[in-house]
Amino acid sequence: MSSVSPPRSRDAIPFPLAPVLLLAGLACAVPSLAAPAPAPAAAGAGAPFTPAQLEEARLLRERCLVDDTGYETLRSLTREVGQRFAGSPGDARAVAWALTKLRALGLKNVHAEPVTVPHWIRGTCAVELVAPWPQSLAAVALGGSVATPAGGLEAEVVPVTNIDELARIDSTRIAGRIVFYTGRMQRAEDGSGYGRAVTVRGRGAAEAAKRGAIGVVIRSVGTDRNRTPHTGGMRNEKGDREIPALAISNPDADLLEDQLASGQPVRLRMSNSSQWADSARSANVIGEIPGRERPREVVVLGAHLDSWDLAQGAHDDGAGVAIMSAAAKLIGEARLKPRRTVRVVLFANEEFGLSGARTYARDHAGEAASHIMGMESDLGAYAPLGLHARVPPEKLPAIRVMQSLLAPIGVEYRGNDASGDADVGQLAALGIPVCDLDTDASEYFDWHHTANDTFDKVDPALVRKNVACYAVLAWLAADHAPGFGRAPKAR
Amino acid sequence: MSSVSPPRSRDAIPFPLAPVLLLAGLACAVPSLAAPAPAPAAAGAGAPFTPAQLEEARLLRERCLVDDTGYETLRSLTREVGQRFAGSPGDARAVAWALTKLRALGLKNVHAEPVTVPHWIRGTCAVELVAPWPQSLAAVALGGSVATPAGGLEAEVVPVTNIDELARIDSTRIAGRIVFYTGRMQRAEDGSGYGRAVTVRGRGAAEAAKRGAIGVVIRSVGTDRNRTPHTGGMRNEKGDREIPALAISNPDADLLEDQLASGQPVRLRMSNSSQWADSARSANVIGEIPGRERPREVVVLGAHLDSWDLAQGAHDDGAGVAIMSAAAKLIGEARLKPRRTVRVVLFANEEFGLSGARTYARDHAGEAASHIMGMESDLGAYAPLGLHARVPPEKLPAIRVMQSLLAPIGVEYRGNDASGDADVGQLAALGIPVCDLDTDASEYFDWHHTANDTFDKVDPALVRKNVACYAVLAWLAADHAPGFGRAPKAR
Repeated sequence: MSSVSPPRSRDAIPFPLAPVLLLAGLACAVPSLAAPAPAPAAAGAGAPFTPAQLEEARLLRERCLVDDTGYETLRSLTREVGQRFAGSPGDARAVAWALTKLRALGLKNVHAEPVTVPHWIRGTCAVELVAPWPQSLAAVALGGSVATPAGGLEAEVVPVTNIDELARIDSTRIAGRIVFYTGRMQRAEDGSGYGRAVTVRGRGAAEAAKRGAIGVVIRSVGTDRNRTPHTGGMRNEKGDREIPALAISNPDADLLEDQLASGQPVRLRMSNSSQWADSARSANVIGEIPGRERPREVVVLGAHLDSWDLAQGAHDDGAGVAIMSAAAKLIGEARLKPRRTVRVVLFANEEFGLSGARTYARDHAGEAASHIMGMESDLGAYAPLGLHARVPPEKLPAIRVMQSLLAPIGVEYRGNDASGDADVGQLAALGIPVCDLDTDASEYFDWHHTANDTFDKVDPALVRKNVACYAVLAWLAADHAPGFGRAPKAR
Repeated sequence: MSSVSPPRSRDAIPFPLAPVLLLAGLACAVPSLAAPAPAPAAAGAGAPFTPAQLEEARLLRERCLVDDTGYETLRSLTREVGQRFAGSPGDARAVAWALTKLRALGLKNVHAEPVTVPHWIRGTCAVELVAPWPQSLAAVALGGSVATPAGGLEAEVVPVTNIDELARIDSTRIAGRIVFYTGRMQRAEDGSGYGRAVTVRGRGAAEAAKRGAIGVVIRSVGTDRNRTPHTGGMRNEKGDREIPALAISNPDADLLEDQLASGQPVRLRMSNSSQWADSARSANVIGEIPGRERPREVVVLGAHLDSWDLAQGAHDDGAGVAIMSAAAKLIGEARLKPRRTVRVVLFANEEFGLSGARTYARDHAGEAASHIMGMESDLGAYAPLGLHARVPPEKLPAIRVMQSLLAPIGVEYRGNDASGDADVGQLAALGIPVCDLDTDASEYFDWHHTANDTFDKVDPALVRKNVACYAVLAWLAADHAPGFGRAPKAR
């Protein structure tokens, strides 16, 4: 993932619970993993799903929880493709891999839809403490950074916590200097530390440049203590003066702060040779489990195929690719295929501008009405914890039944405030209903956008749980005869 | 540390316990951290230490446990010097830092004793999977590796677990290939996994070269899952054919094994530009707390001043430098200075050939008889767990009393089989008695010899505990009127 929405309130349950549970016939019938739960007592008239539908979903869930298609799909992607940054040779290999893999998993109508992507090439970078005490710092360029002059640049460092503090400082202290953003990301189960910390990655360089800075260094937006700095996209706007922007690892940021704490002037030398190339061709890769009754109506399972260029992108977002592909495969093998089509969309270039999601939303805008629901997996393979929806309020009883099937996996209902995350958010913006699955984000930002985002970090049991969640949600959504209407458009 | 002795048996207590405890008057008088323990009931005739000595040692221990001199000394070293690989500019800075720091801590006779060190310069290296699926691997050259030809070299990979397995393979399968040592280090509290795994680092290249290999890649000798590969010294012998040897990180070794598991031929390209320079000048840095009665007799507190070149060497062996320096400082501030001198020796170049320890042992061989005891801290700053000695059996009652003062810190007695670790081992080989403090090595090999060995990994409370242990041991050893005689010479 490249961006996280503002933290959601866990209390935002906008309708009374009890009547819904009664309506769904589930007040006392939470399914159990240990043994098949009894069929809901009252799935009759007015209930969102029939007993047969619920039984099918339960069987599917249990299949998913003992199936390693997801994990093995991720092994294949990380072993055979590795990094697949937009526009790079790895990106092209990933598209070819995905076409082959989705077909091998039994999906139909597998095809690539062309997407134009920006193409930035990292080059090499270095950050050296020059004074008071020389040391080398582990650094990476932020995605989109311009290069330094060939010999690098050297200046005194001005530390600021964040852009707000920058704005309060006399500009004469900034001009001609290197700004060092010191703000530290906080670890949290809901990943909410990310949204607060990431601002300086996106806009820190542009804001410092306005005040005359010649370069920017940020403390990595990440929760680890490894010397594997975190990259990620900058967000330049028209008219911004562009200056080089690099991230240093948390231990290196500690060292820089320690030298600053000596009270002596601290000087850095930074160099960066990244460059922009012409836009490149990539693709959204799409595959389907065609619906048995209304194949033109679709439920979208989204993930992004691209990764950053420093590692395999195992959690970000190889896990999503693998989870959604496996969920579709297992739906395709279900005793009863759902009424509507389940469509896997592996989006191009989420990381560096959402090219694939925007292209999909544009190219498929005419079919928005036939998009029943969208979901996206882009927070790694971690423990599923909660379900958010974005549906008309009268559709919430169906959502609550869907969630109840995931309760044995640990998923609680968390409100009607879903956003669709980065890619599927483009569909939510069209009014297409979405569901978001919260997973435990405590560890994710240790690896996110670093060289450390590799296959060994992924737990197969957690992949299985995620596959089960999305398979159940997608099967029920695709089979739900009345559909989910149109949702209030997301921001 | 660069080498670990074979695992010691915890059962090796070579004399009956009960009589010793009675002799020391300590059977029921284990000191407590919570409140001053009552003076041992029978520290009279025949007891190794007087009540006054024990009280002094207890007071010193309690002072150490609330004093952050060690941690702040380590902060200073890592902040102001950083990497200090033998022969590098950082090494020279470290010598200057140590002279200044030991004086600032109140040590006397602070001076440097010249040491000639080898000088190997890392350069850059790269390892690329070429086939079946191209990917870049995180790699570092092993210390002492020769360079590849300028364009690098490329060959098929032959995986072997270790040198024993290599020896069993038909040499025609090795000739012209790159050997990949796959053996994985096991995590253990006593660090015993290191000794088993490290053989391939020392001798793997030479043994592969004998069979015609053109390069070697080893799985990092380390217990982490970070993409921070572990360097360390190779051990070339006269007549060895030298081939380039690189270490890849554990996740990269996993990937390479995964590609090999496909059954397809796997090809690597490796390049390395390291080079040898002329020998360089370094120094052992020495400082003392002079004894109040017999200043020419010394107890040595040893650690090594050099580090590998990839990081600050915070645990290896900045921690040892800081712990021993702080222990001496606090002894110097004790109400009563010990009879004999406590000498801190910060050895040059432990990592790449023990130059400092060998020079010290040679230059001070004539004073071996006045070296009462040696100790060394070179396993990071982790929880103290056990004490080994190497003394004549009749001196063990004194050792048991010394250990009993550390019991509240968690230190048990573990036998009369100490070796002095790498540097002080050179003194043990002269028959000088030594004590070794076991610390919990479970985590140490996550950071050891990697870019991740930085100050943030060090816990100040554990530094304090180590300082307390060495201060108590050194004070009592230096004040112990009869001395410890000569020990059986260590291997």
